[in-house]
Amino acid sequence: MKTIWRPGYDLTVDKIIKTALSRDPDREIVYRVTTGGDKIERYNFRIMFNRINALARALEALDVKPGDRVATLDWNTHWHYEAYFTIPMMGAVLHTINVRLSSYEIEYIMNHAEDKVVIVHRDFMKLIETVASEVKSLKAIIVVDSDYVPEKIGGIPTYHYEDLIRSYKGNYEWPRLNENDVAAMCYTSGTTGMPKGTYFTHRMIVLHALSVALFASASPLIRLGEDSTMLHVVPMFHVFSWGLPYVSALITAKQVYPNKLIPKVLLELITSERVTHTAGVPTVLYMLLTDPESLKYDLRGLVYINGGAALPKGLADLARKRGIKVVVGYGLTETSPVLTIASPPVKLLEKADTEDLVLRTGWTIPLVELQVVDPEGRPVPKDGKTMGEIIVRAPWITPEYYKDPEKTMNAWRDDWFHTGDIAVWFEDGSVLIQDRDKDVIKSGGEWISSVRLEDAISTHPGVSQVAVIAVKSRKWGERPAALIVPKPEWKGKISLEEIRRYLEEKFVSKGLMPRWWLPDLVIEVESLPLTSVGKIAKRVLREQYKNIEID
Amino acid sequence: MKTIWRPGYDLTVDKIIKTALSRDPDREIVYRVTTGGDKIERYNFRIMFNRINALARALEALDVKPGDRVATLDWNTHWHYEAYFTIPMMGAVLHTINVRLSSYEIEYIMNHAEDKVVIVHRDFMKLIETVASEVKSLKAIIVVDSDYVPEKIGGIPTYHYEDLIRSYKGNYEWPRLNENDVAAMCYTSGTTGMPKGTYFTHRMIVLHALSVALFASASPLIRLGEDSTMLHVVPMFHVFSWGLPYVSALITAKQVYPNKLIPKVLLELITSERVTHTAGVPTVLYMLLTDPESLKYDLRGLVYINGGAALPKGLADLARKRGIKVVVGYGLTETSPVLTIASPPVKLLEKADTEDLVLRTGWTIPLVELQVVDPEGRPVPKDGKTMGEIIVRAPWITPEYYKDPEKTMNAWRDDWFHTGDIAVWFEDGSVLIQDRDKDVIKSGGEWISSVRLEDAISTHPGVSQVAVIAVKSRKWGERPAALIVPKPEWKGKISLEEIRRYLEEKFVSKGLMPRWWLPDLVIEVESLPLTSVGKIAKRVLREQYKNIEID
Repeated sequence: MKTIWRPGYDLTVDKIIKTALSRDPDREIVYRVTTGGDKIERYNFRIMFNRINALARALEALDVKPGDRVATLDWNTHWHYEAYFTIPMMGAVLHTINVRLSSYEIEYIMNHAEDKVVIVHRDFMKLIETVASEVKSLKAIIVVDSDYVPEKIGGIPTYHYEDLIRSYKGNYEWPRLNENDVAAMCYTSGTTGMPKGTYFTHRMIVLHALSVALFASASPLIRLGEDSTMLHVVPMFHVFSWGLPYVSALITAKQVYPNKLIPKVLLELITSERVTHTAGVPTVLYMLLTDPESLKYDLRGLVYINGGAALPKGLADLARKRGIKVVVGYGLTETSPVLTIASPPVKLLEKADTEDLVLRTGWTIPLVELQVVDPEGRPVPKDGKTMGEIIVRAPWITPEYYKDPEKTMNAWRDDWFHTGDIAVWFEDGSVLIQDRDKDVIKSGGEWISSVRLEDAISTHPGVSQVAVIAVKSRKWGERPAALIVPKPEWKGKISLEEIRRYLEEKFVSKGLMPRWWLPDLVIEVESLPLTSVGKIAKRVLREQYKNIEID
Repeated sequence: MKTIWRPGYDLTVDKIIKTALSRDPDREIVYRVTTGGDKIERYNFRIMFNRINALARALEALDVKPGDRVATLDWNTHWHYEAYFTIPMMGAVLHTINVRLSSYEIEYIMNHAEDKVVIVHRDFMKLIETVASEVKSLKAIIVVDSDYVPEKIGGIPTYHYEDLIRSYKGNYEWPRLNENDVAAMCYTSGTTGMPKGTYFTHRMIVLHALSVALFASASPLIRLGEDSTMLHVVPMFHVFSWGLPYVSALITAKQVYPNKLIPKVLLELITSERVTHTAGVPTVLYMLLTDPESLKYDLRGLVYINGGAALPKGLADLARKRGIKVVVGYGLTETSPVLTIASPPVKLLEKADTEDLVLRTGWTIPLVELQVVDPEGRPVPKDGKTMGEIIVRAPWITPEYYKDPEKTMNAWRDDWFHTGDIAVWFEDGSVLIQDRDKDVIKSGGEWISSVRLEDAISTHPGVSQVAVIAVKSRKWGERPAALIVPKPEWKGKISLEEIRRYLEEKFVSKGLMPRWWLPDLVIEVESLPLTSVGKIAKRVLREQYKNIEID
């Protein structure tokens, strides 16, 4: 069949804000400013679009050209949101920097990304001062949420964001972009080596937002809609706040940008702005529920989408007691991020007990293909028991680790992206993560989840902290070893026999754990090494115990 | 910024059914069979996918190759739905034929499309018999919903669909497709000349389904969701049932396929299957509400999305009295079809009177850009008064009229598709269609809506039918003439003076119509010519009165 091809209507980021502008330019965006007194202010897409035009004109005057990287070091502010649109819409690349990284790492990634301009929140002016002079590509610094802006920082010309908006008022001539142009990038801090760069095209961002928005709207549990109010709690430097600022614009929901996250302020905003939906890591949920004034606030009906780490059942129960609906989501920086959300399909919702189902890693959102496979790439049985690696396809996975062909080849094999997450999957279509690939213990061709062993051992009354790692075994290849920090009164009393006896009684005899999972080695230690983000540094432990070999 | 390009994850039709299969393969699809007794049966995506594999193997055995056209002449059946997926997923082109066309037109379009195979409902076996031998490209006929299937029809080998499914059971090796491959085509029966061919790529179908699904889910009025039940009332030969079978799969809603539309059966299904959503033309809504047994059925809560023609206020009120929520949608065959839906944004929902707003032509759905422009292409004021033509951009507009470069050039100008619909638009972002481009009267550089004049004149007690057309005017270019079929008792009494007096009193004096709209000519006629689809043939009338010229 002969057909003509007409230049497609590209899926570019401007289409997202245009959707909001045509649906309701007056839709409210609430934001918090911390300079000149702590204030809640509000504007809308119409006003924002004027500011976006001015910002684009200002960046153009600062010599930002298509393909150039413009970085941000900012909290969850409306300034950050403006950058989310302006920079990609100019054809430049938005580079959101994780403000929690060390100045050494930030210097590394800014040089790696070759950032030309950086937009900096007042809180990070000190930080940028220590790195600016070391970033060869850097030409300008723009400061937000600040009363005072020096002329230069580290020798780099510095501007006040609001001055630029005033000076460059007017319409910008937006270029026509290709959907496969790069729109944004961010770095993922692995547990090994320096952060790895990932990047995303306009098409990826638009399709990710469409799919997340559709799943969240159609889900009877989540019911995100045009009449919802979204509080942006996921840091905007974490994979574009999980895409939720884009999702909110596509749906034209009301939005709240709380600036730096302060539990009391979040609680206040949830009540005063009648927030219906938010998303975040378990820690933030914990902070909201345990804040000394938490009980003063009515949190009933709030939907909390948990991501970034598994949601502990105890915390979920605590939230549910307050009337919060919790649902788990899952994804990686490399995957834009969302892959799955644990909103069960209708047939399971009709059952009474969905409390555990919403804590699963979840079901795929539209357009995501996911498999759990063994080391040969064959899907493992959907029995909720057999572990395998999660591999995925979706229209929004980074094409590579930027300037790192080796790590790229390792993750992208046979047209599937390998997540490195070890999971089981169920007949009902959901998956549940068990461990990271590097941490799982490969014993006699079978896998043992270090995370589940740690969970079990941590319930022993004498255990303060525990890490389970693989040690070499002549017979099995690898076997589990538990490194335990005992509680003071148990010092010297934590033995292999005691731990095995305890696990046998509480888990194995009840069918909660196979007997062959029982550790072959228990070592009492004074403390466990931590990574920069506060997780146990298992790589360090493996290195430390690499010479141990058992039968 | 140097980046690598990884073969994209194409937006192909298989992704839609894969989304449903991974979300809930057991999701119910209810369908009606009319042979061997009138029966309601039910299956699910899992069973359907097995049948789709068998159908693909059967079509392959019948020599269907990528790019080949496979036509359908069918009601709203699960067989039709299976064709919706199977044919595009094979790389072939689904060609849905409007069963209401004359056999002459069907022969024309089958030859024009070069259909190789046709899937035919029993009800159209007679019809296909009269055209089959004249369609040179036709190699096979497959019959559904029939007890009896002859060996040949019009000399063409004929098969029973269910026999094929049984014979070709097994997994088909699906090809990997490009999203810009053509997936489907259908013909639009214009009021002039033969039907024009439009076609759609996989990408267009997927993006259209995503956007419609998202808008309908996020809209507080419509709230289509995973827990909804969709009754497919829009004929599946009308632009793929407005995309709703694809939308339903993406959302994994329960679906009901009623076969041939019979009001009593639809009412029965709405109640027994607890249908929450349906869509259709005003005529079907009218049939549902005026069926002799209609009042026996509880229709409260049903959402009815009206399209195909404006929804008269009287009919909307009738529906609302029964507890039905009505919302208007708008689109063209050329545009996949959906462009706008009249679900008002939240700020307007908070007002009390949205009854008129939901009868507007609507607000754009995500990714659609729409303007109302004057003949020079400049946007007209958003004042709800000034008329202009609706022009649109969206990722799902047909690239051309198939094999018709002239009509193509006329519709596609300056990267905008010209709909030929004359509308006003409002400050609130909505549009309201006034007339077709060809029917609007251009008087002294201003436009007069023939439709609104007809509406007004039709309220005169002596008027049975009316058509308003343009006649030539030396002074104004064109002026309105009303051709009126009077009621028997008013024969010979309908004068220009009477009509002008009436309009002056009832409309002009109340500010409902400008005085310069009053017709300059009233002609009493015996009858009005109709088109094949039952609309007044204004083209014929214009031809008939082309020699009239007034001052």
